[in-house]
Amino acid sequence: MDRRKDGHENADKPIRDSCRMTTDIFFQIATPDEALARLFEHLPGVPGSERIGLDAALGRVTTAPLAAPEDSPSFARSAMDGYAVRAADTYGASEGLPAFLAVDGEVPMGAAATRPVQPGTAQLIHTGGMLPPQADAVVMVEYTQPVDETSVEVLRPAAPGQHVIQAGEDLAAGDPLLPAGHQLRAQDLGVLAALGITEIVAALRPLVGVLSSGDEVVPADATPAPGQVRDVNATTLSALARQAGADVRDFGVAPDVRSELERRTREALNTCDLVVISAGSSVSTRDMTAEVIGNLGTPGVLAHGIAVKPGKPTIVALADGKPVFGLPGNPVSAMVVFGLVVVPTIRRLLGTGSANEPPRRRARLARSLASQTGRIDFVPAALQLRDDELWATPVLGPSNLIATLVRASGLIRIPLDAGGLPEGAWVDVEPF
Amino acid sequence: MDRRKDGHENADKPIRDSCRMTTDIFFQIATPDEALARLFEHLPGVPGSERIGLDAALGRVTTAPLAAPEDSPSFARSAMDGYAVRAADTYGASEGLPAFLAVDGEVPMGAAATRPVQPGTAQLIHTGGMLPPQADAVVMVEYTQPVDETSVEVLRPAAPGQHVIQAGEDLAAGDPLLPAGHQLRAQDLGVLAALGITEIVAALRPLVGVLSSGDEVVPADATPAPGQVRDVNATTLSALARQAGADVRDFGVAPDVRSELERRTREALNTCDLVVISAGSSVSTRDMTAEVIGNLGTPGVLAHGIAVKPGKPTIVALADGKPVFGLPGNPVSAMVVFGLVVVPTIRRLLGTGSANEPPRRRARLARSLASQTGRIDFVPAALQLRDDELWATPVLGPSNLIATLVRASGLIRIPLDAGGLPEGAWVDVEPF
Repeated sequence: MDRRKDGHENADKPIRDSCRMTTDIFFQIATPDEALARLFEHLPGVPGSERIGLDAALGRVTTAPLAAPEDSPSFARSAMDGYAVRAADTYGASEGLPAFLAVDGEVPMGAAATRPVQPGTAQLIHTGGMLPPQADAVVMVEYTQPVDETSVEVLRPAAPGQHVIQAGEDLAAGDPLLPAGHQLRAQDLGVLAALGITEIVAALRPLVGVLSSGDEVVPADATPAPGQVRDVNATTLSALARQAGADVRDFGVAPDVRSELERRTREALNTCDLVVISAGSSVSTRDMTAEVIGNLGTPGVLAHGIAVKPGKPTIVALADGKPVFGLPGNPVSAMVVFGLVVVPTIRRLLGTGSANEPPRRRARLARSLASQTGRIDFVPAALQLRDDELWATPVLGPSNLIATLVRASGLIRIPLDAGGLPEGAWVDVEPF
Repeated sequence: MDRRKDGHENADKPIRDSCRMTTDIFFQIATPDEALARLFEHLPGVPGSERIGLDAALGRVTTAPLAAPEDSPSFARSAMDGYAVRAADTYGASEGLPAFLAVDGEVPMGAAATRPVQPGTAQLIHTGGMLPPQADAVVMVEYTQPVDETSVEVLRPAAPGQHVIQAGEDLAAGDPLLPAGHQLRAQDLGVLAALGITEIVAALRPLVGVLSSGDEVVPADATPAPGQVRDVNATTLSALARQAGADVRDFGVAPDVRSELERRTREALNTCDLVVISAGSSVSTRDMTAEVIGNLGTPGVLAHGIAVKPGKPTIVALADGKPVFGLPGNPVSAMVVFGLVVVPTIRRLLGTGSANEPPRRRARLARSLASQTGRIDFVPAALQLRDDELWATPVLGPSNLIATLVRASGLIRIPLDAGGLPEGAWVDVEPF
């Protein structure tokens, strides 16, 4: 018998567990980090790259460092509206004793400023305008006083370089811009555009094969017969995979027939970069899934069981260079484990680190929670702001109810070493 | 002269501001919330809806509440691996005095369980299996002891309903599932799939027209002549709009010719649901943009200037039912204001509230910051985890440098009423 089935996780710890455990030769339980370390040790690099336009590049990942191809700005520009001057002409100027300058026209916007600023003169200039030759500073319009059409008083001295953005001051040609493995944000695209980079090389989106199994499971568009249920996981996990930056191919629902499960798994493995099998809910299906995964290729199963609740009956494997995951059939468990081990693997295949800053938030616990040391507990919770403080209310009940999924808006994470937590305690939550 | 230009925001407060301000009849400064309240008061509802498949529904927004169309599960299921029994047959059972039951075969997975459980018998059942007629409980396999091929000892009593998920216990037909205006998450799609809902009606993605202006600005794919710079904002703002759930049409760069700016703005307004104009950096361009926006339709300009730094020279308008925004040309300012006023408007057009829980995080300030009461200050910052605490290091320097955009990974938000903040203070940050 196998104690790793999901249903048990909600029950009291069975009394005869310890003696059963020793009979299970595949039982290589690991923390999620250990399982990933074993996987990443053998994992080849990014599957490939492609050249894409900026309009398709949001969220994509760079494969090489990018540097500024040119100076930005490429010419000295004014940072203010005012007058381009020779700073020396303004020395000692004050409200009481202004400097008097002849206004020698206006710097055109969007064109080269070619006319030098002669001693004792100023040229009207707008923010972003090109600094004319021999000007070395800009006086803000607020510190000037027009005398007439052709002259102006300057009320404060300007230091050389004042209110001027020098050529290359923002970015100089060759300046590092973005590292390899960087996930492109809106503003990164804007900066690339500013530098004339309209195409970039990005890591290919890994192709994730999603396969469900279980005699009792039918696809979402089928009408279940008595004793059958529609597949939840193919839809949830596909959406999570796309959200993490992957493309997805759906391999349907395999029945509990070993040859058929094996055929579909190999088909998925041949065409995809990563395969996720969500096992049926019965132990026999999960045992079969474990055996099929174990025979796919080397090195094979790296972790069978992870120290997480819910989600313990998880298989992490590598088959001839491709990651294969066996996830619990329970929809909540499958989702938790997908976030813990599959998403970091997708990010690894994209060549980007697991996020330096996980999307965790701090919240206060709306009721006390029991927990067990030695495993990470995830508790679905509804998150609410009360007086500007975030509170997490555990959504209790069996974790195999799909209603839990819509009622919760995050997961409370209780670390490996924590026992229970009292009401009002601050906890880490991962919103979803 | 107009003091609302971006460049000034980085300078000391000019000495003669107060007398200039009263001369500006358009100066209707508002907080971002006030500006949005004025806009939303007049804004028509969601532009439209469409029927889409679940595989395209991630992140889309419901337009009507959804209820469960059927019971889930549609039959009583076992939540455990074990034996389907009549609970009464196990009363009083213990390790010392087990209940003895005849094993009457196995419940098939994925098929109707039609054979009743007779008194004194049990049927082997798997997690997810259909409860056979006349069984009312499941005994976990761990609390049983096989006697021989055809009989089993039960070591603990089972209560009626134990380890059984009743029909409709998860969701009953008619149970509310998702409200209108709900942005669909991965798990929502899974639950819809489980209930056989493979298509939903979603709010149309609003079409956002993006227009840049300024004689000095050229598109990203052009080679700038001396005095010209490439457009940053069209790319940044388009990506932010897509991220917020909109589609985007790019209307290029309008020169500082009023008729041309007006023609392009009207073209954008005719074809789009919302228009964003990022003005050139010079005051004359911004003044022209303000006039063009003011003449587009009624009620016209609702706020001219918002109490935010950077981003003060912002125009919020409604022209015959369509929101129009004039954003500062400064890329950092444009990005800040887009998040503050345009993103909430896009969400409003999608029919979904501004997020109940903004994606803010708490971080500690790595150096002290000056601020001014009466406006919201946003300071670009690099966010880093140190010993599990998030620290925000302000990226200083002129906010019109594009390098700021790539060096920062979030914005520190300093509220309206806060003065300066000391090093180590806890602040709200909005990661990006």
